[in-house]
Amino acid sequence: MFKTKAYAAQSATSALAPFEITRRTPVADDIQIEILYCGVCHSDLHTARNEWKNTQYPSVPGHEIVGRIVAIGDKVKNFKIGDLAGVGCMVDSCGHCHPCDEGEEQYCESGFTGTYNGPVFGGENTHGGYAQSIVVKESFVLHITHDKKDLASVAPLLCAGITTYSPLRHWGVGPGKKVGIVGLGGLGHMAVKIAHAMGAHVVLFTTSASKVEDGKKLGADEVCISSDLEQMAAYANQLDFILNTVAAPHDLDAYLQLLKLDGTMTLVGAPSDPHPSPNVFNLIFKRRQLAGSLIGGIRETQEMLDFCAKHNIVSDIEIMPMAYINEAYERMLKSDVKYRFVIDMASLN
Amino acid sequence: MFKTKAYAAQSATSALAPFEITRRTPVADDIQIEILYCGVCHSDLHTARNEWKNTQYPSVPGHEIVGRIVAIGDKVKNFKIGDLAGVGCMVDSCGHCHPCDEGEEQYCESGFTGTYNGPVFGGENTHGGYAQSIVVKESFVLHITHDKKDLASVAPLLCAGITTYSPLRHWGVGPGKKVGIVGLGGLGHMAVKIAHAMGAHVVLFTTSASKVEDGKKLGADEVCISSDLEQMAAYANQLDFILNTVAAPHDLDAYLQLLKLDGTMTLVGAPSDPHPSPNVFNLIFKRRQLAGSLIGGIRETQEMLDFCAKHNIVSDIEIMPMAYINEAYERMLKSDVKYRFVIDMASLN
Repeated sequence: MFKTKAYAAQSATSALAPFEITRRTPVADDIQIEILYCGVCHSDLHTARNEWKNTQYPSVPGHEIVGRIVAIGDKVKNFKIGDLAGVGCMVDSCGHCHPCDEGEEQYCESGFTGTYNGPVFGGENTHGGYAQSIVVKESFVLHITHDKKDLASVAPLLCAGITTYSPLRHWGVGPGKKVGIVGLGGLGHMAVKIAHAMGAHVVLFTTSASKVEDGKKLGADEVCISSDLEQMAAYANQLDFILNTVAAPHDLDAYLQLLKLDGTMTLVGAPSDPHPSPNVFNLIFKRRQLAGSLIGGIRETQEMLDFCAKHNIVSDIEIMPMAYINEAYERMLKSDVKYRFVIDMASLN
Repeated sequence: MFKTKAYAAQSATSALAPFEITRRTPVADDIQIEILYCGVCHSDLHTARNEWKNTQYPSVPGHEIVGRIVAIGDKVKNFKIGDLAGVGCMVDSCGHCHPCDEGEEQYCESGFTGTYNGPVFGGENTHGGYAQSIVVKESFVLHITHDKKDLASVAPLLCAGITTYSPLRHWGVGPGKKVGIVGLGGLGHMAVKIAHAMGAHVVLFTTSASKVEDGKKLGADEVCISSDLEQMAAYANQLDFILNTVAAPHDLDAYLQLLKLDGTMTLVGAPSDPHPSPNVFNLIFKRRQLAGSLIGGIRETQEMLDFCAKHNIVSDIEIMPMAYINEAYERMLKSDVKYRFVIDMASLN
């Protein structure tokens, strides 16, 4: 066991503040990573403030972790001290259910263990990446194949990247497909880049006219201002797939009716209050589907990292010191970040 | 042109009553069918009473039509006078859009022409099967391969049969799959029979304890009383696919959470008021899908009729005279029919 500096929320209403946590000494297949950068995800904020009503305190968020390996157990096979490594949203799962066998640990039937806040179905707390170091078993550690200079910008791929890559891959996005991305935030800007790199024709839907140019620079072939009913109508029955990254409650029908026959809209954000109920006629009359998707498995996360490295895809980030986290949360709530905060963990020293 | 006896609603609030309509004389690829039986679908009632706010009056419902061919145009190739024939929910479509090319005329981009109430996107009215005869172009006429003695019980296959067969086929129901059917009415009882014949393990969900024995007789391997939370909990994460035939607004989450990873629940009923909004977490945490499906194409309708003939599947019906229709509607609203009314059209003479 060893001590490591961290930032924690002590209750739903307290600001995050310096805190010291204990990590296990790496043994067997454990890998100890000195955390260099950690992305700031909306889930961090939801958890720190107990918005999903399941937070264990003290809460040390952070699941977009990149760093350098400083110690390994004697059973570690594919990593060595000095390697760059990443950790995403999961640090364990049962390992023997059907989804785990398929490499889809995020859907583990016993519930995966989150990088922070412990097992999703409840259990001993875990502490995430707002810390100097973390110890994770090898099978949940990722290789970073990007250039080292991009390391800070790679961090958000561990959640925002895989959360968008996995459904884009699962629903067959690629050349010849017309794909809608709803929302241009942390998730949406990754989705635009990845869908573009997959070869699809990408239509970005945003409420902000100010994001049109950005959207195109990021890889959107077209940008539609979703509050403009005339612009929206032009896309009726046009899209093969829609990845909807907006967690705030909104009218799903406005997007469902843009899908072609057999098209799917997949939600990756979970609203705190329900969306208005989708119109069943909109589903029936084109055999459309409304789906959800949760991050991605470890094997697929590695595939995503390699894909992004090959296509020079990283996140657009604003780098910040650890002590800025509470202000960063307030700015995230106003969507005032292009497009992801990343903590420079050297600032914790 | 010729006259034929029929039953029509003259307004949303008037009972159906005798009425005389005009049919075109069959030319070219037209087929004139003497209607022997016509099933009574909930859509008939919705339309007669303008519950979907798009009814053209006078309204002659009926789209589960079986009868005998009495005249044909000179371009008709695959039917002859004297043949038994069926007509379902559609009598025309554009014939050249992508769905029409694929044999999915129900999803015609210009909107198919309903057997009654005209084109779905609006246009000249059409009159359905509550009549002595109908004239339909050959490409929308089905061959009846069941034994002639079953003719009345075959009629409901033209809508209730294909509406359930099509999604069961589309979502790959068959041996090794565990399938839920929600609701045991006109659609549900067909779904149970067809899913069973497809080789799936069938679980029927019904609110009525009185339907348990019936459900098993019809082909359900298990029957779950959906109001019993304990019984429902036993099916959590167990089902590959759910066909939900209940049109009344109800809690979709109770069923969505019974789906396995990547499972789909498909709705074939359209509620007059929205269902409560489904919980997005329920979709995300198992990559589940909520879908809709609309009847089936003509080619698939023929496939369904042949499948049902081969497996000795017909509808369980209560045969009735035309003049009973208004009372039948009232009983349908109370689910007081096992499981489909079929009009004996000889009663119109």
